[in-house]
Parts: sequence; C-alpha cells; structure tokens
Amino acid sequence: MWVINTLTGNMNLSEGRNMNILIIYAHPNHQSFNGAVLEQVQNNLGKQHTVKTIDLYAEHFDPVLFFDKEHRRRDLATDPYTKKYRDLITWANELIFIFPVWWGGMPAILKGFTDRVFVSGWAYKGKKIGMEGKLGGRRAWIIISHDTPRIAVPFMPDYGSVLKRQVLGNCGIKPCRITHLTPLKSSTLEQRQKMLAKVGKLAREV
Amino acid sequence: MWVINTLTGNMNLSEGRNMNILIIYAHPNHQSFNGAVLEQVQNNLGKQHTVKTIDLYAEHFDPVLFFDKEHRRRDLATDPYTKKYRDLITWANELIFIFPVWWGGMPAILKGFTDRVFVSGWAYKGKKIGMEGKLGGRRAWIIISHDTPRIAVPFMPDYGSVLKRQVLGNCGIKPCRITHLTPLKSSTLEQRQKMLAKVGKLAREV
Repeated sequence: MWVINTLTGNMNLSEGRNMNILIIYAHPNHQSFNGAVLEQVQNNLGKQHTVKTIDLYAEHFDPVLFFDKEHRRRDLATDPYTKKYRDLITWANELIFIFPVWWGGMPAILKGFTDRVFVSGWAYKGKKIGMEGKLGGRRAWIIISHDTPRIAVPFMPDYGSVLKRQVLGNCGIKPCRITHLTPLKSSTLEQRQKMLAKVGKLAREV
Repeated sequence: MWVINTLTGNMNLSEGRNMNILIIYAHPNHQSFNGAVLEQVQNNLGKQHTVKTIDLYAEHFDPVLFFDKEHRRRDLATDPYTKKYRDLITWANELIFIFPVWWGGMPAILKGFTDRVFVSGWAYKGKKIGMEGKLGGRRAWIIISHDTPRIAVPFMPDYGSVLKRQVLGNCGIKPCRITHLTPLKSSTLEQRQKMLAKVGKLAREV
C-alpha cells in the first residue's frame, strides 16, 4: 500500500511491515485537541505495529541543555539522563511528533528534547562541511496544530520545518511528512472532528 | 547618528537618546564565545544608557509553559512567575538577545521564555485575522552564533527569524536587526576577535 500524503508528497513505504513506532507528544493538557490527536493516532495505527509513546509533559522532561568545562558537550552522547530516549529512537522505525505550534515552532519542552537528545556523536557526526546523519533508515511524521492559514505557512518560519529539515533531516531521518491541523482556534466542533478523522485515516495508513 | 546595519539594512534611531536596554542572554557557560559576546556588549553600550541583563541560565529560568483547566491560558498575562520579566520588557526601549543557534533556533530555555512571557493579553491581542502587537515603541537586536555560512542562511529555518518575525514582530517590536557571528566552530582566535570587535562597534552605536 502506497499512500501519497496530499500535503508534502512524501510516500508511505511501510507496505504492511511490522513497525516500531515511537510517538513523541508535547502538550501540557490531555483534555485538549492535541490530546485528542494523540489518542486518535494511538487508536488507529495498525495492530501489526508496536507503538510506544513519550509524553514529555507527563515525564517532566527537563529541556534545558547544559554544558561547561566540567560537563563537556562531547559527553552528551552518553548522558544517562537521555539514555532512555536514545534507546527508544534506536528501537523505532518511525517517529511521530504531535505538538501545538507556539510562536511558529516547537514548545520549549520539545525544542529542548532535540537539543539534548539529538546530539553530536550519537545522532550525527560533524563533517568539514555539514553533518553526516547517523539515524538513517527511519521515517517521521509531524502532526502540528496552529491557527495560520495553510496558504501562508510556506512564507513563515518555521511550522515544523526546523524539526523536519534541521533536526531530523540532518540526522538522516527521512522522508518526513508534516500534517497541518489549522486553523484550530476558530474551528467548529465539526471541523475539529474532520481534522481528527483525517489524522485517523493517515494513522491507519502508516 | 544614523547607523546602517550592513546585514539587514535596519537603522539605528537612538540618536544619542538615553535608552533603557535589556539584554536577554541564553548560554550555559560564561567561559564561552557567547559569554565573551555578552561582556563585549555590556562594556561597549554607551554610558548614557541604562542597561539590565537577564541571564536565563544563571536565573534557572523554567522554560516549560504549562496550562490546563485549572491553570488557564488567559491567566498567563498575570502569571507571578513571569511578572519580573514583563516588568523589565515594559521598562526597556531596546531588547538585545544573545544566544547560540542550536538546531537552527533558540536554545529551549529562550524558546520557553518567549512561550511564557510574550503571551496573549500582555504582549499582543488576538484579532479576527492575525495579532495586534502591544509592545510597540521598542526595537531589538539579535546576536547569534552558529556555523552555517551566511550565504546559506536565507534558505534555512530559522536562524533568528522566528524570534524576529514571529515573536517580536507580532508583538510590535521593530525594527529588529540580526547579527550573525559565523562560522564559529572552525574560526581562528583572530577571526573570533574580529567578530567581537564588530559586536563592540555595533554596541557603541546603539
């Protein structure tokens, strides 16, 4: 089964494989639209897959990357605090990110997850020019909610593009599709239900 | 004195006014190039100005925005935890941001500062379409360090553009110039000294 994502043109290549799917979810309130998106994804992914979820708020993830002369940057690749997350990403074939867009980008708790977990020596290797991704063979799906009209998104930073291009792309995780759920704030209950139905359909096709 | 910033074309309009300048600094290690940039700015701003600094790491700022049914989003505009920062921004005529670019954007501690401090009802008002900035009459200067060649920056998310366009622009803080200190990692001591000298010159012209 090949499914073309209408928004990005990326193709679903799972073709019925049993996948290890890691959901990374970043919203403070489960009684929210994002909470409903998470549930919709979890309930609609094919039963042949194994699914694990990192709920960054529930885990009280500390997003503040720290280093100095005693705590070297090069040691981040073996930081015990983030080992669990490195192991989960190593295990996964597909990463699914679910988060609201705040000020154009990831909530700080998720930005810090990328700062602390996707580090040099583990997720990529620095080259003289650019980077060599070390997490190839994995795909990603980013599901974001915001209020910006779709037509305006390509002209605005960053709406998932930092995560897709900078973080995941540079670490070798591709293809990556982005699903925009927008506009959220002004939407009716019926429109939200349609968005959730769309998410459910896409999740069944993973 | 009118100074054209060579990079962005924004103009310095202070013309000798006594300004209230707020530096917002986000780097974990003072013994770093960013620490030297901070010192260079502090030492070179004109003595007629009043300068205050928020050192987000030193203050152990908690960047995780939280809300749920009991902690309403609408109450963030009067959140006691962030009152000090709202008061400092209210006081300031010019904001100077100093930070390293991590994964294309702000360190999580600074991203969370924008999530928690620049909130609806205080920094902006939602309109039917778009936002109405409430922090007009202020300018900004963003000083970032990274390793991406300048020529490539316009094609990559976000390199200061989220802070400039999404956060500050939407809140009415403009003009905003961005100074790129790059490439840092491969630079010689002499090249770093030249970058610092450039920062000092620009600071004297504020």
